[in-house]
Amino acid sequence: MADPKTYTATCSAPVNIAVIKYWGKRDTSLILPTNDSLSVTLDQDHLRSVTTASASAAFEAGDRLWLNGIEEQIKDSKRLLACIQECRKVRKSREEADASLAKMSDLPLHICSENNFPTAAGLASSASGFAALVATLASLYSLQPTLSTSDLSRIARQGSGSACRSLFGGFVAWQSGTSPDGSDSLAVEVAPKSHWPSLQALICVVSDAKKGTPSTAGMQQSVATSPLLQHRIKNVVPGRMVEMGKAVQAKDFDLFAEVTMNDSNNFHACALDTSPPIFYMNDTSRAIVQLIEEYNRSSIEETGKRRVAYTYDAGPNAVLYAEEKEVPTVLALVRHYFPNADFDDTFNLLGAGANASHRGAQAPAELPSGLPKTFNKDIIQVHQPGSVRRLIHTRVGDGPRTLHKAADADNVGDEKESLVGPDGLPLRLQRAKRV
Amino acid sequence: MADPKTYTATCSAPVNIAVIKYWGKRDTSLILPTNDSLSVTLDQDHLRSVTTASASAAFEAGDRLWLNGIEEQIKDSKRLLACIQECRKVRKSREEADASLAKMSDLPLHICSENNFPTAAGLASSASGFAALVATLASLYSLQPTLSTSDLSRIARQGSGSACRSLFGGFVAWQSGTSPDGSDSLAVEVAPKSHWPSLQALICVVSDAKKGTPSTAGMQQSVATSPLLQHRIKNVVPGRMVEMGKAVQAKDFDLFAEVTMNDSNNFHACALDTSPPIFYMNDTSRAIVQLIEEYNRSSIEETGKRRVAYTYDAGPNAVLYAEEKEVPTVLALVRHYFPNADFDDTFNLLGAGANASHRGAQAPAELPSGLPKTFNKDIIQVHQPGSVRRLIHTRVGDGPRTLHKAADADNVGDEKESLVGPDGLPLRLQRAKRV
Repeated sequence: MADPKTYTATCSAPVNIAVIKYWGKRDTSLILPTNDSLSVTLDQDHLRSVTTASASAAFEAGDRLWLNGIEEQIKDSKRLLACIQECRKVRKSREEADASLAKMSDLPLHICSENNFPTAAGLASSASGFAALVATLASLYSLQPTLSTSDLSRIARQGSGSACRSLFGGFVAWQSGTSPDGSDSLAVEVAPKSHWPSLQALICVVSDAKKGTPSTAGMQQSVATSPLLQHRIKNVVPGRMVEMGKAVQAKDFDLFAEVTMNDSNNFHACALDTSPPIFYMNDTSRAIVQLIEEYNRSSIEETGKRRVAYTYDAGPNAVLYAEEKEVPTVLALVRHYFPNADFDDTFNLLGAGANASHRGAQAPAELPSGLPKTFNKDIIQVHQPGSVRRLIHTRVGDGPRTLHKAADADNVGDEKESLVGPDGLPLRLQRAKRV
Repeated sequence: MADPKTYTATCSAPVNIAVIKYWGKRDTSLILPTNDSLSVTLDQDHLRSVTTASASAAFEAGDRLWLNGIEEQIKDSKRLLACIQECRKVRKSREEADASLAKMSDLPLHICSENNFPTAAGLASSASGFAALVATLASLYSLQPTLSTSDLSRIARQGSGSACRSLFGGFVAWQSGTSPDGSDSLAVEVAPKSHWPSLQALICVVSDAKKGTPSTAGMQQSVATSPLLQHRIKNVVPGRMVEMGKAVQAKDFDLFAEVTMNDSNNFHACALDTSPPIFYMNDTSRAIVQLIEEYNRSSIEETGKRRVAYTYDAGPNAVLYAEEKEVPTVLALVRHYFPNADFDDTFNLLGAGANASHRGAQAPAELPSGLPKTFNKDIIQVHQPGSVRRLIHTRVGDGPRTLHKAADADNVGDEKESLVGPDGLPLRLQRAKRV
């Protein structure tokens, strides 16, 4: 007779933003990258994916999955199947080895996943989404410590390459590995969040009507056609991984910023060198680059060091990294030159009460006195209101969190966190927190 | 007693647009490039620089030079001095060897130079300008055949690197050479204009308020900071020079287009990989790239071959190359998606009489029926009127022309072509033909 119990687990997982970029696969099926990459994990208090997985004999239609309340066909996604099957396989072998464990590996799964950031924010959700999926299945099936967090990252990698980096908090390296079966292509922690908690991020969401080239297709076009990408993979990234490791260990922001910006530009150069060329940055993206370069130039003249780093993924949005104490000035700069961006003041930098919301038509922010005097006026100008349409202020964060679990001997967290109701269907669509 | 005669010569020289780009010097003083480059010379009937050089003992203030009617200080420009001194030196040694030659090498020079294209056209004038200067001094001093055209290109190179390529018509290679003194860094003819006279060009002048990074400074920043540029120089350009040579010899437009576009993107990728990054293309430039890529994609589906090539120098303007028979469609495409561009219909493609001028508010051009059906509508859209503000239609052209000469035994051409009056001062500013 089948087990009548319902087992359930709910986890959240963070977004990560690479400072050494992943671009190119050597195996598209196993998602094995052509080069190492390194990322900063952002705070789940601001941006996260949440997933609930429930296992029950009562789920008669077999495995089902809902993304943001809409059912998706699991069988259509080799990547989803790979993640679920790998987790199940490990659970099954544990059940076979330990008769005291509940027999849940063969029970159908109902999985619900939600992001707390709207698609309109222009942030990729696949990394946090697949990380949350794998963390949730690992929690449901109690796969740790049988599997290490790096083992879980290896599974998440098969869902979405960069998802492997969202299994850890802080600073995370994805080692490309050399094995054809992908067994050594996984994430490792370079440093935890606690190592450098003052590192913050300001995401500038840039308006762009056009759909860009999807990164999965784009990176393989680059692998096939760009002579510069081959040089990047073999000769540029390895040295930068070493430099970035040093920068993080020493909390050397100047070096961190230099390598981050150079690598962002190097990646976009390889996209441009692709045939046909791939453009992710637009005129607003480039204007943000020029603003930050001018600000760093004046900062280097004054202190010998950079104060901000920009980096761009496969889209026009800028992610700016800066030390906490520098953020008010960076925010004022961006709000001055790119007026009218929506902004939730989570950190109460504008002094109107924590999490005050600033929408639309505010006047251009005033600049700290004296700041722009050294700027090249031909290049640095106030841009059309709304060309940056939203600012998201966050910081380095931790890895996946178990929000609720009722499986095996564990019963932790608050059942209210679950996205799956007692009937096994999506309980409610979490109110997407506007961030 | 000084020779009381005034010797004078007037020459014109063409613009050239590289299809394998020059970016980086190995010697900034001698202007020795880091890589070979290859260009197409454009027709002087449409775009040209004209220079008159007069030599007379009566010019008591010594050498003087006027550019577009405004006097410049020759002594402030090492590059101008280098070109003038080299030509004089060769003349002097010829005079010493041949007593029948007029002793004009020591006479002061008055030089006037003008472009027939307004600065606002966004076209670099240094290449045609220095080519016209050297061609004029060579004519005045009767330096040929003592010096070959390649010898003259070596002199012009010291004025402006790409000027060396404007000494020849047709298809021209600038061989970077290896000698530290620059003696083997010169231009050679790959094929004359007559080899492939059906090759035409459509210059799309793109609106851009911002001043870009000057190419002289920009290329040395790239040499100093871009890891990708080093790869381009050593491993990308050499193979492309061979491919482009084959394409020109075989008049293989498809290969010509492929290599031209790849090399333009490769050059701009290296500019982007520079620290701080250099941006020359803007959103309009990129939209033209995407239009041409889509058109070529649909053409490849239909015929297996590309029909248009784009290339971008150190600025946002596109130069499109196409075979004569393809130009009406290319023109219609550009005028449809980028409405309201000023256009002088020199080739009478629009049928309203040769050289009819189309200014401003015309309606978007109609597309050839069926053409855009296969275009990706997410990418290819009608752009804001005036984002391409002028179109210049021209074709492959010949090398420098002697318009007038009265020196040594020669008296050729029409004295009315001279830019210097009998008093040795600028005669008039040639009416800049609006092109």
